[in-house]
Amino acid sequence: MNYPNGIKKKTIEKNVIYKNRGMNLESDLNLTNSYYIENNIAFIYKKPTPIKVVKASYNESGNRVIKEAYYSEPSTTDYNGIYKGHYIDFEAKETKNIKGFPISNIHPHQIKHLRNILSQNGICFLIIRFTNLEETYLLKAIDFLNYIDNIKKSYVSIEYIKEKGYLIKEKLLKRIDYLEIIDNMEVL
Amino acid sequence: MNYPNGIKKKTIEKNVIYKNRGMNLESDLNLTNSYYIENNIAFIYKKPTPIKVVKASYNESGNRVIKEAYYSEPSTTDYNGIYKGHYIDFEAKETKNIKGFPISNIHPHQIKHLRNILSQNGICFLIIRFTNLEETYLLKAIDFLNYIDNIKKSYVSIEYIKEKGYLIKEKLLKRIDYLEIIDNMEVL
Repeated sequence: MNYPNGIKKKTIEKNVIYKNRGMNLESDLNLTNSYYIENNIAFIYKKPTPIKVVKASYNESGNRVIKEAYYSEPSTTDYNGIYKGHYIDFEAKETKNIKGFPISNIHPHQIKHLRNILSQNGICFLIIRFTNLEETYLLKAIDFLNYIDNIKKSYVSIEYIKEKGYLIKEKLLKRIDYLEIIDNMEVL
Repeated sequence: MNYPNGIKKKTIEKNVIYKNRGMNLESDLNLTNSYYIENNIAFIYKKPTPIKVVKASYNESGNRVIKEAYYSEPSTTDYNGIYKGHYIDFEAKETKNIKGFPISNIHPHQIKHLRNILSQNGICFLIIRFTNLEETYLLKAIDFLNYIDNIKKSYVSIEYIKEKGYLIKEKLLKRIDYLEIIDNMEVL
């Protein structure tokens, strides 16, 4: 739409941003991945949370009902899929910390998984949202691993993430358009 | 081991095969994928079954217990991962049918998923075990889709699968060594 001056348009954008504020990273990534899927850009999905079923039975309608089950730890990252023939793999985490990203947020077997995927030339990264800074970064797995292998801290400092990572500008539909960043990397 | 004649070795092999008989396809694939993972050959995993949690609470130990949940339909195939930089994606099914593979075993959104992965140049296939024939085949997604798009039957005939598919010879550790077949394809 054309407005005689930019004022009305700006107000609309502001309202939309305001409306969406407070959505969590997982919802934003779901919207982003749905956008990619619907537009045949990439096919990347969040894996279901692994659940250990202890008790299950059938109800009157003949459906299996789980009566007792527990969440179990994932052995891989949460998201994977394909983009332009490339294998994509990442983990997404939010933190309230403003000094950095606590390494304990990534399980040891997930760290092993990142190393494995890199060894097979997969495109592998973390998406980290600093909720209190209102900033979301893509940090390549190689940079994450280099940090934890060499610097013995309990968190990856925000300075390092700002230096090595890529700030993801939030958009309306492709909320967390991480593939734009992948496109600009030398990997493709 | 060297035996003066082949007889003893043959007996051992026979016993081992006998011992393992009756394992289902999923267990065989889990063993195969574990072998691949432990030997850094490929990183391919079965996705957790998607579950819709209706009721959950915390127990005395502070762990979250699921009290009511239902299995939901998967929107993608069960297995995916990376092999030599390539995205691998497949579905595995057993059938007692001896005339062919019932197409109803693959959900419509899984068929859509196969098309999507092919459009992105992923390596995509079905692993079909005919339990009564004691034969397991790899059928490329493109051949599966060509069949269902052109031949209006409720199943993919065993003749077609024998012609277009690849018989997987069962092995001891790599029970269903599907990557051997991928290696021999023109795709890599």
